[in-house]
Amino acid sequence: MEIEIKFRVGFEDIRRKIEGLGGASFIREEVQEDLYFSIPLPNLLRVRRITNLGKAFLTYKFIKDPGRNEEFDELEVEVSDFETTVEILKRLGFRGDLWVRKKRLVYKLDDVTLELSDVEGLGAFLDIEVMSEDVEYAKRRIWEIAEKLGLSDKDVEPRLYQELLKEKVQASSS
Amino acid sequence: MEIEIKFRVGFEDIRRKIEGLGGASFIREEVQEDLYFSIPLPNLLRVRRITNLGKAFLTYKFIKDPGRNEEFDELEVEVSDFETTVEILKRLGFRGDLWVRKKRLVYKLDDVTLELSDVEGLGAFLDIEVMSEDVEYAKRRIWEIAEKLGLSDKDVEPRLYQELLKEKVQASSS
Repeated sequence: MEIEIKFRVGFEDIRRKIEGLGGASFIREEVQEDLYFSIPLPNLLRVRRITNLGKAFLTYKFIKDPGRNEEFDELEVEVSDFETTVEILKRLGFRGDLWVRKKRLVYKLDDVTLELSDVEGLGAFLDIEVMSEDVEYAKRRIWEIAEKLGLSDKDVEPRLYQELLKEKVQASSS
Repeated sequence: MEIEIKFRVGFEDIRRKIEGLGGASFIREEVQEDLYFSIPLPNLLRVRRITNLGKAFLTYKFIKDPGRNEEFDELEVEVSDFETTVEILKRLGFRGDLWVRKKRLVYKLDDVTLELSDVEGLGAFLDIEVMSEDVEYAKRRIWEIAEKLGLSDKDVEPRLYQELLKEKVQASSS
């Protein structure tokens, strides 16, 4: 299972703090363009293109704790072509209804992945993630690192990126 | 567009004839396991595992001449994992309802692909295939080669493999 907690952060401030943590290694930069398809929550269906690496992925997620959005069953495969995968999903009746675009820096610290993202239209977020079947252990690890970075409960953003983007669109049109 | 005509053949007989044709090159052998999903014709949805090459593909086809089954819009991507792709489709509500297993020899002759298959439970078939937007040209090319191999109208099998397998199951249970 994928356990992750998302925090609102200042990009350069947290970047400096992560790079100052003992043991965190920078893995790669990703420029991601995600197209989300119209299936009802707590299911998520996405095709991701990582433009700077020339890779694409088809991903299904099931949110196990809807509303809080920290625990996910994730199924993901790499696909050879972004556009064709999107077209197959459209032919199967799914509608691509939301784009999320971001620049992301990925770091690893032992079994923890830190994803620092600058999301187009939304600002900067840090996802701290652990793959584990032991939710309690995973959350303890996540919070150990969050605290070292000076993050607390009030910095947590429980909403999904696509929820934040939809709220923004609605706010600006009302 | 993919234009193809399927013929019932004797495996070794046609293999000798193809290898005796001037210009036909043997490309590769594939051991294929195809899982077809429950979507209504003329749509086809399939995940293919090529076990001897360690590859997998997600394929959607739209049959443009249902019943005759010679003209297809095909959308295909290579995927990094067969089982995960199958599981994603199941989570999206599709039911994997038919396996087609075959050993296939692939040959190329200029712009024509010859696929000689030994299909589990059904016997041997030769698919002669051309990728082209010009259906008339494609069929002329296919028939030029079919005639050189001694094949005629009466050898054509218009039914899909999955239709033949379903008929066989129904016949044996009635």
